[in-house]
Amino acid sequence: MKKNLGPLNALYPMLSILVGTEVDGKPNFNAIAHVGIIDMNTLSISMGKAHYSNQGIKANRTLSINFPTPEMVVKADYVGMVSGATVDKSTVFETFTGELKGAPMIKDVPLAMECEVVDIIDMPQHDVFFVKPRNTYCEEAAMTDGKIDYTKVNPLLFDVSLKQYRRLGEAVADCWSVGSRYKGNK
Amino acid sequence: MKKNLGPLNALYPMLSILVGTEVDGKPNFNAIAHVGIIDMNTLSISMGKAHYSNQGIKANRTLSINFPTPEMVVKADYVGMVSGATVDKSTVFETFTGELKGAPMIKDVPLAMECEVVDIIDMPQHDVFFVKPRNTYCEEAAMTDGKIDYTKVNPLLFDVSLKQYRRLGEAVADCWSVGSRYKGNK
Repeated sequence: MKKNLGPLNALYPMLSILVGTEVDGKPNFNAIAHVGIIDMNTLSISMGKAHYSNQGIKANRTLSINFPTPEMVVKADYVGMVSGATVDKSTVFETFTGELKGAPMIKDVPLAMECEVVDIIDMPQHDVFFVKPRNTYCEEAAMTDGKIDYTKVNPLLFDVSLKQYRRLGEAVADCWSVGSRYKGNK
Repeated sequence: MKKNLGPLNALYPMLSILVGTEVDGKPNFNAIAHVGIIDMNTLSISMGKAHYSNQGIKANRTLSINFPTPEMVVKADYVGMVSGATVDKSTVFETFTGELKGAPMIKDVPLAMECEVVDIIDMPQHDVFFVKPRNTYCEEAAMTDGKIDYTKVNPLLFDVSLKQYRRLGEAVADCWSVGSRYKGNK
C-alpha cells in the first residue's frame, strides 16, 4: 500500500562530495549533495546561496569536486557544519593543485576533479553552478584495468530522509546487458 | 599516486531511475541516471535527445520518477536498451496514475514521484527537464517512523565506469552530527 507524501523531493541517496574553492586566497571546502549530471560532460553543483564558498566560485569561475571516503566522514561532515565566514577550513585537509586557479583538491581523497564553471543559474534557494571537468585525478590504487573502480573509490552517499551517510553497496548486474534476459511479461 | 585521466566526468554512481511518460496515449519508460537536485524542490532529468520519451514529456509537461529495486533489474535495464519508437514498452510494468496526466507510475516500485516540468534546457546532447515533484508515493513497508527508509526502498545505482548497477550500502554515520567530533588537525 502506497502512501502519498505530497510534493516531497525523494531523489536520494545522492553522492556526498566536497567542493573545493578559494576565498580570499585560502582554500575552503564544503559538503554538497545537491549535484547532478546535466549533459555528457556538464555537471551541476547546487549550493545554498548563503554559503561562503559561492563568492569564491563566482570570482574564480572554478571549483573542485572531491570524493571523501567513509574513513574521512568526520572531516567531511565537519566542513558541511561550519561556515568559512567564521571558521578557517583551509587546514582541515592537505591540498594539491592542478591546472586551474581557485580549485584546490584534497590529497587524501581517491578521486577529484578540477572544473571550470560554464554557467550559473539563479534559483530561489541555490546558486546552481554548471561545470565542466578539465582534469580528473584518480589514485591508481582506486582503478581496475585503467578504469575508475568505485568499489575502491568507496564514495559517501547522502540520505536526507534519515539524515545519514551511506556506503556504496555491491554490484547487482551489468548495464545494457542484463536487460537482454527480458522475455516479455507473459 | 594520482593519475590524470583528463576531462572525464567521474560523478558516479548516480541513482538509476525509470522515467515514465505517455507517448501517443501509451505508457513508456526509460532508464535514466543523468539526474540531479537543482534547488530544494527542483530536480533535473537529463535525457539524450534521441529518446522517444522526450516527445511525450514535451507534449505533456509531466513525467514520473520510479525507483526500481535490484529484483527488478532485468526489466529496468531492458527499458533502457530498447526504444519506444520500435518496441511497445507499455506492458513491461503494471502502472498506476496519480493526479497528473501523462505521468504513469510503476506499481511494483517502492517509491515513485509524479512531477511537473517547469523548464527545459537545451544542451548539446541532452534535453534537460527541470521538474517539481507534485506527489511522492512510498510503500508503507519502505518507511520507518513515517520517513522514507532507503534501506527498504533498496534503490539501484548506476556506475558508468565499469557499466554496472550497484546496491546501496549500509549507514556510515549521522549527517550534521558526526562532524562535531572533529578536533582540528594537530
